[in-house]
Amino acid sequence: MQVQLTTNILKANDAIAALNRKLFLEKKIFVVNIMSSPGAGKTTILEKLLPMLPQDIKAAVIEGDLTTTKDAERIEKTGVYAVQINTLGGCHLDANMINQVLEKLPLEEINLLIIENVGNLVCPAGFDLGEDLKMVVLSVTEGNDKPVKYPVIFREAKVAVLNKIDLLNYVDFDIKQYEEDLNMLNPEQIRFNVSSRTGEGLDDLAKFLVEKVRAKRDGV
Amino acid sequence: MQVQLTTNILKANDAIAALNRKLFLEKKIFVVNIMSSPGAGKTTILEKLLPMLPQDIKAAVIEGDLTTTKDAERIEKTGVYAVQINTLGGCHLDANMINQVLEKLPLEEINLLIIENVGNLVCPAGFDLGEDLKMVVLSVTEGNDKPVKYPVIFREAKVAVLNKIDLLNYVDFDIKQYEEDLNMLNPEQIRFNVSSRTGEGLDDLAKFLVEKVRAKRDGV
Repeated sequence: MQVQLTTNILKANDAIAALNRKLFLEKKIFVVNIMSSPGAGKTTILEKLLPMLPQDIKAAVIEGDLTTTKDAERIEKTGVYAVQINTLGGCHLDANMINQVLEKLPLEEINLLIIENVGNLVCPAGFDLGEDLKMVVLSVTEGNDKPVKYPVIFREAKVAVLNKIDLLNYVDFDIKQYEEDLNMLNPEQIRFNVSSRTGEGLDDLAKFLVEKVRAKRDGV
Repeated sequence: MQVQLTTNILKANDAIAALNRKLFLEKKIFVVNIMSSPGAGKTTILEKLLPMLPQDIKAAVIEGDLTTTKDAERIEKTGVYAVQINTLGGCHLDANMINQVLEKLPLEEINLLIIENVGNLVCPAGFDLGEDLKMVVLSVTEGNDKPVKYPVIFREAKVAVLNKIDLLNYVDFDIKQYEEDLNMLNPEQIRFNVSSRTGEGLDDLAKFLVEKVRAKRDGV
């Protein structure tokens, strides 16, 4: 019974996600869905990354949170347009929530839409939003055992970002084990090791995203 | 429709939680439900804390995880009996999951049961397990904005533990703001600032728990 319900909810979600994806294709907007635990540094990465993007990349951000508009306010300080979705207790965004805020976004002007999901390593993994790319962020302070403990989200993510590498000397994080575990779960995954505090590694991540945005815009 | 369903699930959960609570009262077992983001340090705190407990405190641990038995194995190395519950994707434990593993626990021999919930700052908050005390753990690396962004769990927790204070010099964490925000959400909350790495502050937490366990055991 419960499984049946979950299936129905996911079917409805997938139908709306398909509508979102069709619209993003028409408008040539590349869409990234960023997921992580609370406090892994999603917003801080965006604060550093958005100002690094070249002039031809026009971005907007959708911020998902249970409550508060804190993250959207932080993003808007970078000069990038941000819309906040409050899930009022819900542990993830779904395709319908995204669909309902699309009219608030300048879709004719942007070519990159970044969706920052609710801080959660479990719930967001199962919900397609219509994005081109799922990105998971893990911080070294969370421990290298997280991919095997939360395998669904790390398997789904085309890109894995390891954040807070400036703290590697102060925590017990086995990068080799982390990479081996990810290779088991998702051998095709693209990986970046960054510090949202010092900015290290973010240039590579920015370059990767810029290439993806231009390829979709130019129909390559 | 969805709200109705949630209400029914919570009603069923509360009924089983009441059964659990009745049993824990009969057996004079003090029960703690520990919740946090993935990687905040719940298991590491237990690894340090359990060996600090005096001889008259007989503990067992229930470990909740999506998959793997890694955490239960870590706990058993301390000499404390541990049972693993795998939620197979579920983002929290519920009262029925607890009820179903009770027969595996030496209930006649223990007076402290620690339940380590699935790493998640959202889902576990709404589910009563029959515990005496909810404890939330936040690590300084996650940022001081988490209580206002995840208010339900911080409001529900009688005890808030701030972990990884050994990293305070390397991260931007405003302890004053954190405490002010918690005072708004939950003025009665008891707080401990600890480092699961160096052990700092864990003696106070252990002392607090020992008093609670003895009070329930002795019917005070």
